[in-house]
Amino acid sequence: MQEKEISQAVIRRMPRYYRYLGELLEDGVERISSNDLSKRMNVTASQIRQDLNNFGGFGQQGYGYNVKFLYEEIGKILGLNQKHNIIVIGAGNLGQALANYVKFEKLGFVITALFDVNPALEGVTVRGIKIHMLDELEDYCKDHVVDIAALTMPKEKADAIANRLVNLGIQAIWNFAHVDLDLIDKDVVVENVHLSDSLMQLSYNIVKNKQNK
Amino acid sequence: MQEKEISQAVIRRMPRYYRYLGELLEDGVERISSNDLSKRMNVTASQIRQDLNNFGGFGQQGYGYNVKFLYEEIGKILGLNQKHNIIVIGAGNLGQALANYVKFEKLGFVITALFDVNPALEGVTVRGIKIHMLDELEDYCKDHVVDIAALTMPKEKADAIANRLVNLGIQAIWNFAHVDLDLIDKDVVVENVHLSDSLMQLSYNIVKNKQNK
Repeated sequence: MQEKEISQAVIRRMPRYYRYLGELLEDGVERISSNDLSKRMNVTASQIRQDLNNFGGFGQQGYGYNVKFLYEEIGKILGLNQKHNIIVIGAGNLGQALANYVKFEKLGFVITALFDVNPALEGVTVRGIKIHMLDELEDYCKDHVVDIAALTMPKEKADAIANRLVNLGIQAIWNFAHVDLDLIDKDVVVENVHLSDSLMQLSYNIVKNKQNK
Repeated sequence: MQEKEISQAVIRRMPRYYRYLGELLEDGVERISSNDLSKRMNVTASQIRQDLNNFGGFGQQGYGYNVKFLYEEIGKILGLNQKHNIIVIGAGNLGQALANYVKFEKLGFVITALFDVNPALEGVTVRGIKIHMLDELEDYCKDHVVDIAALTMPKEKADAIANRLVNLGIQAIWNFAHVDLDLIDKDVVVENVHLSDSLMQLSYNIVKNKQNK
């Protein structure tokens, strides 16, 4: 069955619902109305209902949402009910920062290895995760299940490495290199984190903010 | 004069135009049609025209865009014609990774200091940028111009630090802590980089991709 295509704008909001519901759950809240959730999240109740209706609703008119159920259902929608193994290409500060984030593991994202070309990093471990040399990549991917590759190396090398990973069967790339990847397989999923773009958006809003004062 | 409000969706696309125009400029391209730019960027020509019309156009029917002019105008729109001083709160891997990015400086974003509570980091420098102890924050902000504070510390402390920065007059926060900041001054500009949210969006698309095969 072909399901209705859900817009990436809706998908972008789902992790935030998941985060807020997780906090409610920790606070022992069992049930919440879309109005209360709306106040807490600072979005309209109608937006919440519309977003969740994309996935079939989950609420009962007049009874609100069951927090635990909704949290788990959104988790399933986001694919958090399965483990995702991640390798990180580039073991500089950013790569090591990712390896140090314990929180990713709680969500089912497990960084299993880092790769770099700097011989000084060979065999070094970050939170117990080993840094391999890049020429071991092929062997590693043959012997291990890799679901996601995070690219934290310079943009000049990003396309070549990304396509090497695609040839090794990797179907998802978390791209921190400041370039739009040009992949040989257009079906590979790419999620970009462009820090410079984010800074530019911030500076646009700074300028606009000053003009409005 | 009250200008028309431009949507954040349009603003989010502007850094990408800026990046592609910068590459064209490096390649010595002087003029480009919206069709050619559209092919290169993989968006429709009509989208490009619509986006740029928000700022008054810049193109001449039949002549295309002057690359250098458009690059500089978008730079001005994004506030890149002025310098922005950044301090980083949290000198762990992520904070140090930000301090090591030379590219930010080329865009006018200059990291001038890092702050941390770990005494082992006192006086350590990253690419010549000094790590200060957090209790020096007030003195530092009195003596230096600070335009942006980047928060790379744990989410539990983010609200308290953010409001301390707001009290010190800082008007813009680049937030990497995995929480929506609750600020005493709602006029302060916040740009979030929520890495966990980005991973969840990636895993949603992995699941969807598998279903479609």
